Amino acid sequence: MSELSERVLRGDHRAIARMISYSEDGDPRAAEEMKLLHPHAGNAYVIGVTGVMGAGKSTLICELAREFRSRGKKVGVVAVDPTSPFTGGALLGDRIRMNELVSDPDIFIRSMGTRGMLGGIASAVFDAVEILDASGKDIVIVETVGVGQAEVDVIKVADTTMVVLVPGLGDSIQTIKAGIMEIADIFVVNKADRPGIERAVAEIESLLDLVQVPGQRRIPIIQTVARDRKGVPELVNEVEKHLSHLKGTDIFEKRRRVRYEAELVEIIRKKLMNLIFDETVFREKVDTLLDRIQERKLDPYSAADEILSNVLK
Amino acid sequence: MSELSERVLRGDHRAIARMISYSEDGDPRAAEEMKLLHPHAGNAYVIGVTGVMGAGKSTLICELAREFRSRGKKVGVVAVDPTSPFTGGALLGDRIRMNELVSDPDIFIRSMGTRGMLGGIASAVFDAVEILDASGKDIVIVETVGVGQAEVDVIKVADTTMVVLVPGLGDSIQTIKAGIMEIADIFVVNKADRPGIERAVAEIESLLDLVQVPGQRRIPIIQTVARDRKGVPELVNEVEKHLSHLKGTDIFEKRRRVRYEAELVEIIRKKLMNLIFDETVFREKVDTLLDRIQERKLDPYSAADEILSNVLK
Repeated sequence: MSELSERVLRGDHRAIARMISYSEDGDPRAAEEMKLLHPHAGNAYVIGVTGVMGAGKSTLICELAREFRSRGKKVGVVAVDPTSPFTGGALLGDRIRMNELVSDPDIFIRSMGTRGMLGGIASAVFDAVEILDASGKDIVIVETVGVGQAEVDVIKVADTTMVVLVPGLGDSIQTIKAGIMEIADIFVVNKADRPGIERAVAEIESLLDLVQVPGQRRIPIIQTVARDRKGVPELVNEVEKHLSHLKGTDIFEKRRRVRYEAELVEIIRKKLMNLIFDETVFREKVDTLLDRIQERKLDPYSAADEILSNVLK
Repeated sequence: MSELSERVLRGDHRAIARMISYSEDGDPRAAEEMKLLHPHAGNAYVIGVTGVMGAGKSTLICELAREFRSRGKKVGVVAVDPTSPFTGGALLGDRIRMNELVSDPDIFIRSMGTRGMLGGIASAVFDAVEILDASGKDIVIVETVGVGQAEVDVIKVADTTMVVLVPGLGDSIQTIKAGIMEIADIFVVNKADRPGIERAVAEIESLLDLVQVPGQRRIPIIQTVARDRKGVPELVNEVEKHLSHLKGTDIFEKRRRVRYEAELVEIIRKKLMNLIFDETVFREKVDTLLDRIQERKLDPYSAADEILSNVLK
């Protein structure tokens, strides 16, 4: 056990932050430390929170964290959302809310970027969840925007996924149709004091009617006004009910397996891409092939075959 | 030259559609056909259109296509946006607009999904652009949502990238700050007849002031009301000005190289992931390792090393 890993296991926030940075930066120490932490993780319950911009996800997450704390749980938050208030653009109300949380030694909040040529944010997110898990957090909340491939992949870490909507946002229902429906375990209609709440709930209910399989769990719709903490205890109760539901079947273990497979895919992808596009020996080869592609003397598919024949057994 | 490739080169829309489907489905014929098409591509000008949901991107793209047609250009559109009206959720006005376009034999519109465990939408997008290019389209427009890794990667295909904003949408400026600024060649403020237009333009101008390098091209801000076709000819003029600007330097060729490198990355990633996670011989190995990860007897990083030692030279 390294000194850093030991400090993470004791729940030291500075050690947790440094470990997550190693992982984000692709520092070689990350892999070594993660190997040490893995046997100590697997106990945290992971909640994914996704939904369109403007749905109030960050406020909701602050209030969720507070509610879990009041029930004696330690909480970690990972925000994977370039437009999240956690990332910097917080409104005053959110900032006050967040500062209150940050001063609590049993809450850790971290936001992560989503950019970079060779992708690779996802493996850092998986690592961050595992680091917080190993550090003794009982609940880890992962926030994503909920559109696009990267976000859908990231949500694979979650045991329970909430999709957050708001009344009157025309895009909400469209977004559901576009595939987010399949990943929702709980629908949250936030800002439920706004006009149009009945219609929004009715629209979701009729979508749920369409996909409902008789005898199967129906996805609940919880109304919240996160700003005023309304509906948040009920939402946490619903998360706990979902957990019991999962534990009563083999779904829980199946979901965890999906998470580990997604994590493995990411680690392998990152390693291979670093090897091919960053290591000098291959980089020169790639540059020569790119010249020929640009001159239209070679196509990218043949170039890929040529590179792989140099790399693979 | 295959029969299908020949039909694509003649601009046959049914052949184009089938070829794009091969690519989307990961059909092995895709690679073979793409090799045949590559020497015939490279002439189309590629325009990326990105921006938040609700900015009216699809309406704007319809009007851009119409304007390019009136200037004698053939147009292809690739929408990579799960919430795009092109994907199904069109409002009545958009649908009328699109039907008019679809009946034009020199306009081809295709929407593409963004989901799937092993990623891989991006390589299909690159292929779709190259197919439309080889088929004789002069302009290829690629629409993305503009948040998240996958979308940022996709925009790498573009010669000119437009970022579409609307007045009064609080998130717009936040989104710019979050990194979209760096990829914008032209800012479009759509729905410019709405209140708050002056403020929106002023906000973008002051952001531009901050990053302006003296003597360098300043990113223009074009106001449009796409619904009424207002500002669209001016926007197309601005695209043509940007093209001359690129052609006057080495930026044009540099950007094309970034595109081919991104395409190469995607093809290699997809091939490697299919090899490791789909081929039976490796799949069994992966399943055994996942069992051990789940039992916490093995960590994902060590598992990745073990798989790679079986695959790499």
